[in-house]
Amino acid sequence: MELMEALRTRRSCRNFLGTPVEEEKLQVVLEAAGWAPSVMNLQPWRFIVVKNPEVKQALQRAAEDAVRLAYERSGWKWLGKYRVDFLSQAPVVIVVTADPRDTGADQFLRPPSGYAMSCCAAIQNLMLAAHDLGLATLWYSLFDKQTVSHILGLPPHIEVISLVVLGYPAGALPAVPRRPIAELTTVLE
Amino acid sequence: MELMEALRTRRSCRNFLGTPVEEEKLQVVLEAAGWAPSVMNLQPWRFIVVKNPEVKQALQRAAEDAVRLAYERSGWKWLGKYRVDFLSQAPVVIVVTADPRDTGADQFLRPPSGYAMSCCAAIQNLMLAAHDLGLATLWYSLFDKQTVSHILGLPPHIEVISLVVLGYPAGALPAVPRRPIAELTTVLE
Repeated sequence: MELMEALRTRRSCRNFLGTPVEEEKLQVVLEAAGWAPSVMNLQPWRFIVVKNPEVKQALQRAAEDAVRLAYERSGWKWLGKYRVDFLSQAPVVIVVTADPRDTGADQFLRPPSGYAMSCCAAIQNLMLAAHDLGLATLWYSLFDKQTVSHILGLPPHIEVISLVVLGYPAGALPAVPRRPIAELTTVLE
Repeated sequence: MELMEALRTRRSCRNFLGTPVEEEKLQVVLEAAGWAPSVMNLQPWRFIVVKNPEVKQALQRAAEDAVRLAYERSGWKWLGKYRVDFLSQAPVVIVVTADPRDTGADQFLRPPSGYAMSCCAAIQNLMLAAHDLGLATLWYSLFDKQTVSHILGLPPHIEVISLVVLGYPAGALPAVPRRPIAELTTVLE
């Protein structure tokens, strides 16, 4: 697929088929993530590819707890009904984690964030590559990092950045409107 | 360009020609940024396109101060010689900022980061689109956010995320090696 088409037509997906993701395709999307830029080329990303049903269920329960907490604190009605079943429904959840020691010279300023930004570039690459292969994704970030870290038994120095849900979409993915970019841009000539 | 080729061949650039960036190309890269996913589609990104030489010089001085501070704190020799001239040399510096109020339900958990992650996806889109158009970029993040905010006269609630240097490359951009992705991946079957 042409780059510009991929950028324009990638969509977030919240309903997945149970169809497994082919091993070759999984490798391609992970490789694509690894081509992202990173501070000092330190490649701080560490991927945990979760196919295990029990672990996916545990991640879903953690997400449900976080949604419930956010609902109680916000009072936002839609959050009270927001379902995160996709975390167990999709064949794969890629937990993107980072080693914050791989953050470059910004570790000497405040706050260090290079490692997290690099991981986000990797996630965007991963999602674009998945789209190119006919797969769909959701970048999911409403969870408690400590809880997810505990579920996965991560060492204390590793930080959970985001979950990326991956699989074949169940149904069409509607386009989501964007604000005119001029409204969000200031030019200093 | 094919998506996968774009992902694989995008490079960071630190030497730019003085050649201006065509207005149409600038629009394309900003539009590409705006196609990124964002939490609740809030599109938290705000772009400040800096072409003004005095402002670029001020950004460069801010970056030099941050590099000096990081050098003093780290003792890393290469930082003592690290030059950030590209900030005034390149025709355009896009300051990517965010409105943290556009961060979705994660504002009710700790720490909110949805707005920053969305901006990083936008930056990656922007850099890929630039590469597709024959332009080159550098994602630059070693600066003090308050100083850059002050230079640009930003309102207090707006947060500076990163600078993206944009222009035509002066010379070839060598490939940077990547670690085998299997080394960075764990699979839970």
